[in-house]
Amino acid sequence: MLHFENDYNKGAHKAILDALLATNDEGLAGYGADEYSQRAAEKIRIATNCPQAQISFLTGGTQTNQVVIASLLASYEGVIAADTGHIAIHEAGAIEYTGHKVLSLPHKDGKIEAYAVRQFLEAFYADANHEHMVFPGMVYVSHPTEYGTLYSKQELSDLSKVCRDYHIPLFLDGARLGYALAARSTDLDLPAIADLTDVFYIGGTKMGALMGEAVVFTKGNQPKHFTTLVKQHGALLAKGRLTGVQFDRLFTDDLYLQLGQHAISMAEQLVALLEEKGYRFYLKSPTNQQFLLVTDAELEKLEQSGVCYGFWEKYDDTYTIIRLATSWSTSQADVNALAQML
Amino acid sequence: MLHFENDYNKGAHKAILDALLATNDEGLAGYGADEYSQRAAEKIRIATNCPQAQISFLTGGTQTNQVVIASLLASYEGVIAADTGHIAIHEAGAIEYTGHKVLSLPHKDGKIEAYAVRQFLEAFYADANHEHMVFPGMVYVSHPTEYGTLYSKQELSDLSKVCRDYHIPLFLDGARLGYALAARSTDLDLPAIADLTDVFYIGGTKMGALMGEAVVFTKGNQPKHFTTLVKQHGALLAKGRLTGVQFDRLFTDDLYLQLGQHAISMAEQLVALLEEKGYRFYLKSPTNQQFLLVTDAELEKLEQSGVCYGFWEKYDDTYTIIRLATSWSTSQADVNALAQML
Amino acid sequence: MLHFENDYNKGAHKAILDALLATNDEGLAGYGADEYSQRAAEKIRIATNCPQAQISFLTGGTQTNQVVIASLLASYEGVIAADTGHIAIHEAGAIEYTGHKVLSLPHKDGKIEAYAVRQFLEAFYADANHEHMVFPGMVYVSHPTEYGTLYSKQELSDLSKVCRDYHIPLFLDGARLGYALAARSTDLDLPAIADLTDVFYIGGTKMGALMGEAVVFTKGNQPKHFTTLVKQHGALLAKGRLTGVQFDRLFTDDLYLQLGQHAISMAEQLVALLEEKGYRFYLKSPTNQQFLLVTDAELEKLEQSGVCYGFWEKYDDTYTIIRLATSWSTSQADVNALAQML
Amino acid sequence: MLHFENDYNKGAHKAILDALLATNDEGLAGYGADEYSQRAAEKIRIATNCPQAQISFLTGGTQTNQVVIASLLASYEGVIAADTGHIAIHEAGAIEYTGHKVLSLPHKDGKIEAYAVRQFLEAFYADANHEHMVFPGMVYVSHPTEYGTLYSKQELSDLSKVCRDYHIPLFLDGARLGYALAARSTDLDLPAIADLTDVFYIGGTKMGALMGEAVVFTKGNQPKHFTTLVKQHGALLAKGRLTGVQFDRLFTDDLYLQLGQHAISMAEQLVALLEEKGYRFYLKSPTNQQFLLVTDAELEKLEQSGVCYGFWEKYDDTYTIIRLATSWSTSQADVNALAQML
Repeated sequence: MLHFENDYNKGAHKAILDALLATNDEGLAGYGADEYSQRAAEKIRIATNCPQAQISFLTGGTQTNQVVIASLLASYEGVIAADTGHIAIHEAGAIEYTGHKVLSLPHKDGKIEAYAVRQFLEAFYADANHEHMVFPGMVYVSHPTEYGTLYSKQELSDLSKVCRDYHIPLFLDGARLGYALAARSTDLDLPAIADLTDVFYIGGTKMGALMGEAVVFTKGNQPKHFTTLVKQHGALLAKGRLTGVQFDRLFTDDLYLQLGQHAISMAEQLVALLEEKGYRFYLKSPTNQQFLLVTDAELEKLEQSGVCYGFWEKYDDTYTIIRLATSWSTSQADVNALAQML
Repeated sequence: MLHFENDYNKGAHKAILDALLATNDEGLAGYGADEYSQRAAEKIRIATNCPQAQISFLTGGTQTNQVVIASLLASYEGVIAADTGHIAIHEAGAIEYTGHKVLSLPHKDGKIEAYAVRQFLEAFYADANHEHMVFPGMVYVSHPTEYGTLYSKQELSDLSKVCRDYHIPLFLDGARLGYALAARSTDLDLPAIADLTDVFYIGGTKMGALMGEAVVFTKGNQPKHFTTLVKQHGALLAKGRLTGVQFDRLFTDDLYLQLGQHAISMAEQLVALLEEKGYRFYLKSPTNQQFLLVTDAELEKLEQSGVCYGFWEKYDDTYTIIRLATSWSTSQADVNALAQML
Repeated sequence: MLHFENDYNKGAHKAILDALLATNDEGLAGYGADEYSQRAAEKIRIATNCPQAQISFLTGGTQTNQVVIASLLASYEGVIAADTGHIAIHEAGAIEYTGHKVLSLPHKDGKIEAYAVRQFLEAFYADANHEHMVFPGMVYVSHPTEYGTLYSKQELSDLSKVCRDYHIPLFLDGARLGYALAARSTDLDLPAIADLTDVFYIGGTKMGALMGEAVVFTKGNQPKHFTTLVKQHGALLAKGRLTGVQFDRLFTDDLYLQLGQHAISMAEQLVALLEEKGYRFYLKSPTNQQFLLVTDAELEKLEQSGVCYGFWEKYDDTYTIIRLATSWSTSQADVNALAQML
Repeated sequence: MLHFENDYNKGAHKAILDALLATNDEGLAGYGADEYSQRAAEKIRIATNCPQAQISFLTGGTQTNQVVIASLLASYEGVIAADTGHIAIHEAGAIEYTGHKVLSLPHKDGKIEAYAVRQFLEAFYADANHEHMVFPGMVYVSHPTEYGTLYSKQELSDLSKVCRDYHIPLFLDGARLGYALAARSTDLDLPAIADLTDVFYIGGTKMGALMGEAVVFTKGNQPKHFTTLVKQHGALLAKGRLTGVQFDRLFTDDLYLQLGQHAISMAEQLVALLEEKGYRFYLKSPTNQQFLLVTDAELEKLEQSGVCYGFWEKYDDTYTIIRLATSWSTSQADVNALAQML
């Protein structure tokens, strides 16, 4: 079987496992008070060029979105997101479960535009009935988006400007951030993201860790008693070391970036290969996720060849959109084998 | 001042005040256990031709929507509604506050179509990832809609059929139900509504009562311990008599229907008058709410004449949509005065 | 039937009905923006000698407790209350429904003592694990308490002092406040209550109104966008006039106080009568609620005489605690009839 | 430093790390659909002698309590627990955050007694006002308790009987279940627990895993769409393999039981040693947690010797209660070193 279905079908990167093994027998403080968590936080402060950053480690993406959004919003507020945003459709209502509405805006290639956000905010405050409506209290973007697209520095700056004009935080979901940072065409690095957003997270689960996401509050704006809030969500690990050690390693010797670069390089070979074989692309993605338009016959062939792919959606009567993803764990041998099969 | 801004700017109908006065000195049981609440329920059972109906009285529309929806949905479920639906925009996130997502579908003249609902449900269950999504657990319609439009019996039957096919309840928000029942063109009466929906409510606040809405569960499907659920929402009146006496009176001698008919007849005069004066209609409504397209000059004139109207929204650079509403309390003198002014 | 079972078995006081009738035909703004609501608020500001007070009108006691507590607490906070407090047992979990724990302390005659609250707060912050616990974020007291007892000015001052030392608000539930203010032995008037608490409410439902409670934020501390929060709870009346007119009248010509005084005077006659007849008191209450210890034989006699009483609880094998309540609506004739019967 | 402060200060047991390493490069399905999770579930079905058991894997104890309790309770229900129960005090209000009250009963050595639970349930239903109260909808016990004590088979059977009589589930929190199963004096094994409870969980975090708890619904009573519910709580791991592989290993060759037995044997040596040195015990625990009464001088000595202990609480002016815990990771060398130090 060739695993191109997603970027979390393998365990962890060897270096991370080594770090877990090397520290396994140390007796450490619980709940994130261990030295590795502290060290990882310090390394992230340096990598983001954000000395005042407040960093916590959580377990998964939906959990992180839920905790961050619920902690920052007032009861009367909701969160603006693209209608394709993960929180808008694929988190089983985790945001609404905490009492907050997701205010969906139409996406453009998976992104929301500053112009549209500003228009929405203007219209809200211009509406004579807005006291009977959910106040827009935050803007959420995924980077890369659910379509594998990327915000440019200009686009993120524009969103940041709107948010500041309206005094609401900008939150960036970086479940796959490593693949964005490593994209050839991007002009957004970690310091720029830390500068332009109010809070974001650095995904580990899909970037070589067993699990784990690092939440970064960049403006001294971590909610009061955040540990208690995390605990209240059932999201506080007793063995905080587990995420601490992994992120400490991910941010040592540029491992996080290297894993991203490796996946992007594999993705480029994949794209070249698919183009050569005549596959149609639904969307050109500069990241590790590639969306193809395939016929039923092509689908069947892929299946028989043992290529795992992620189903996306029916495009029309002829085509289905499927996703092929590379990752930190994709090997040259995997790509070669795929070339053989197609 | 001429009050056409909404249908709740006066107190209560005289007959209702009389009923409150007549019963004022009786010592009655609290929390809805009084005889008037029981009698009102019985009269509603008869009026809806639904002997098994379970009836409770609440205070306002948003509260009723919140209590009914939260009580019927499982935690993993949301409610399908038109994107113009009251619960989707004008209830300050009251549904999300209880943990449930409003699943918006594009409206057509304020309505959702059975076809679109079925398509949404089919697509949901066809989606391989639907376990990561909010389950559609109910369909919500307003009748009349927020645009003053009405479902036909066929349309409601079709929606009912979809809901039954998918084993989810159909909930009809009847905040202005009296104005729908009295519309000339409607083929939906109370028994038909009781038959086709699983739960609906009969609005009192906008139909001559001081306040109050009667919730009707039509299929023996009132949630277990509903009184406790109502209490938990802070929605249980100590003096349940207050809603009981009012609904007892509204359902005596056809008062509820008569109030609706009066408002419709006033609305017809209003429409004729406005047409005569050359006003443009945004939408022809068979109910008590009329939506006009007015220029800035027309707006100014209305204001100077002392006509109160409800602001709706900017239509384009030239026109604004405004609402003029008649109600149970609109008098012939009011319409005559308006004719004078325009 | 003689109604001594509670203080909400009749409709409204005649003066209040008159006020509703007198204003019934006026076209008024909705949602509390009407002039009567504004006027009532102004009169309450004067009566409480609290010019900066922010006042809103809600429908019932549980709703008011829910909205106030949920609006003031942070997500990680709970509310301290006596274990006999209304919010702790008789509100169907309305506080927990909003996500907050009620932190119960043992009551003393229905009250909590400043000493015990301080001890609880000290212990909380001294606990090395307090970040894993619910933060005490507010103190709730009922006045009169559920046992009909009253806080003295000294006791409320002491509670106020603890709250200020710990920077948490003191909230006084005044569902029956009128009966407390009129008690002979009390040294707490409205200005003192406004001064010592951060928020309290003036109950109308049990004090001659059809329904309605006036929430008073005394320190400029009304939560931001409170109208939206109230709406989100389903607690915003379209016809805000209904509570506005009633409270406007209650705070005209000292009606609120007079109704309380009347009830207290009736209660004093009731106590004298019961003592004369040899009834045993569970607790001497200076307010309108009297708790008796009765035998099965006495219970039977009361029932046969047609005296309605509120069941309280089994005291021991011999005695049951029952409640007899006077109210604004108890007449001299009622008390005379009771004297006859016993 | 000698780590006796808790049972989660080391990483994972070597066998578990080996299993993670051995399976690391396999491409596996996400969200618990992998073969290791399936296999672990099957092994737990056999170990519990409960072929119909439905098993899911979550990350931590508070999360598991939150998800299980919120999923099983109706909105109007709360959960009965000892006032020392983890959910009652040390989970930052995680249960209330989901809308449910924890109904605390006084503990006896950390346990609740069937008699007291029955009395509470009887009193609840006998109360004429119980519709205004939170319905008791579940009984929660920890085994071992927070005091290291154990329920006997008779005690658990009695609790089970009460629950069945009242048709509410019995939920056993087994965060430290392995230490209970291995206690010398216990007569409760996994099949008995599966038989007597309706749902329980098998703790991994404190029993040699990196993290992870296995939830076992024993009566075909797993809530519908449980995966969606777990997702909604932010508790669904993308790499479900992480818990699957660990529990597969824990339930291979009796590892789970052996780890417990090892800890108990270390605890016995610890107790003997402490007794020999004249330490006073607050409570004799048959499990891995030992609670001592120590003077300030003794505390200081422990600290200087580098013995880590868990603070519990002030007992009186002279004594403090501290906790010393052994675990799966305590070595003979650790105990010997402690003997040297004391």
